[in-house]
Amino acid sequence: MDQHSTASCVVIGNEILTGKVRDSNAYFLACWLRERGVDLQRIQVVPDVVVVMAEAIRTESARSTFVITSGGIGPTHDDLTYRGVAHAFGRPVRRHPALQAKMESWYGGPQSDVRLRMAEVPDPCSILDVEGLWVPVVRVENVFVLPGIPQLFERMLQSLDPVITGGARVTLCSVFTRQLEEELAPLLEAVLREHPTVEIGSYPRVDTDEYKVRVTLESRNPAVSHAATDALVRRLSPEKLVRVVR
Amino acid sequence: MDQHSTASCVVIGNEILTGKVRDSNAYFLACWLRERGVDLQRIQVVPDVVVVMAEAIRTESARSTFVITSGGIGPTHDDLTYRGVAHAFGRPVRRHPALQAKMESWYGGPQSDVRLRMAEVPDPCSILDVEGLWVPVVRVENVFVLPGIPQLFERMLQSLDPVITGGARVTLCSVFTRQLEEELAPLLEAVLREHPTVEIGSYPRVDTDEYKVRVTLESRNPAVSHAATDALVRRLSPEKLVRVVR
Repeated sequence: MDQHSTASCVVIGNEILTGKVRDSNAYFLACWLRERGVDLQRIQVVPDVVVVMAEAIRTESARSTFVITSGGIGPTHDDLTYRGVAHAFGRPVRRHPALQAKMESWYGGPQSDVRLRMAEVPDPCSILDVEGLWVPVVRVENVFVLPGIPQLFERMLQSLDPVITGGARVTLCSVFTRQLEEELAPLLEAVLREHPTVEIGSYPRVDTDEYKVRVTLESRNPAVSHAATDALVRRLSPEKLVRVVR
Repeated sequence: MDQHSTASCVVIGNEILTGKVRDSNAYFLACWLRERGVDLQRIQVVPDVVVVMAEAIRTESARSTFVITSGGIGPTHDDLTYRGVAHAFGRPVRRHPALQAKMESWYGGPQSDVRLRMAEVPDPCSILDVEGLWVPVVRVENVFVLPGIPQLFERMLQSLDPVITGGARVTLCSVFTRQLEEELAPLLEAVLREHPTVEIGSYPRVDTDEYKVRVTLESRNPAVSHAATDALVRRLSPEKLVRVVR
């Protein structure tokens, strides 16, 4: 088995838990990590409470190679993520001189105490610059702190391209069929016996007439994904097969 | 403070963690719970692995009044949630005679072993019937097991209307302004000093010109939400105020 890295996502925000906002960052992150061959192991959504987010961050930091947080880094009273990350690692929060200097140079002069709250970060931490923004990605151990605003989250995540790296990418094949899951179950098990390293997922849909089930076949070894897909297609009823996507 | 209940959501599914599918059930649940005055405390997304989901379910069962799970209850090899819930509470999984009878009466005769896997549930558990479906909500302790297909998840969740109940509903007021968060921060803190029981959230947007920040003011006491909103509006620059929604 090849070596690959893992990740966890911690979304911080009462607005998600109360349904005021539908999160899109975890989904964007899942797709981004997938492209890079990093296995996302867990997503947690937690409230804006320092000790609660600290516990989740500590747990995920121990579980995964990388932890990405989303949300809670603005200047208002409910922006507590830097404090949460600091608490998770038993570090204080202090105004970071280089970050303050960067902010002042960006905005062209001394800044208010309110805005300077955004320069109060865990001490020590790493400051990872993002081109075209004054706000950096703050890194503490294996935890990367990103904002909740989707446009910023996505842009700042892209800046981590050289840092968050995985192993071989997963090759995904999808088979769409009008056969029911009950019919498919023994066929999938037969394919798994022939190709024990392939990952097979079975996803029924009820909101389309086009197909009943999407079967996904995945492996970091492309030959395994394709061979398992061939082995499945051979077993399916041809008249109910809708399409195969490789 | 009035008494109110809490909830956790455990989404089971490799398809979410790999970005193959964007989850909508956690968001639907967040809105539904909110309507009923139940505080959603945590969302966890976990992979299709029995011991991993069991650990998350056990943790959330201890944390919250109610736990709702989504996904993993079909007839294929990757549908492991009943096993995960059973494992969380140290119970075996057994074919449930009444559920088998219900399935057979629904489908009009004896069922294949594959389909009967969906009648293999934690023992003991409660079977909560859903009108118009043979598949029930399975309940173990405070955990309610629902399917991942959104149309079924939503319908089966509605059937829990008499069971999952909260306290007073939260009254939400929203103020949309073109003032920046840095300007708003001290105003929000002044409002919080005047109305210490209100919950204030501040949500900047960068993808619209209509407003810069949405401020939400919430309380289970409607008078508090409205008074805090009045106190904020008095402090805002009138020419930058976009609208107030109560």
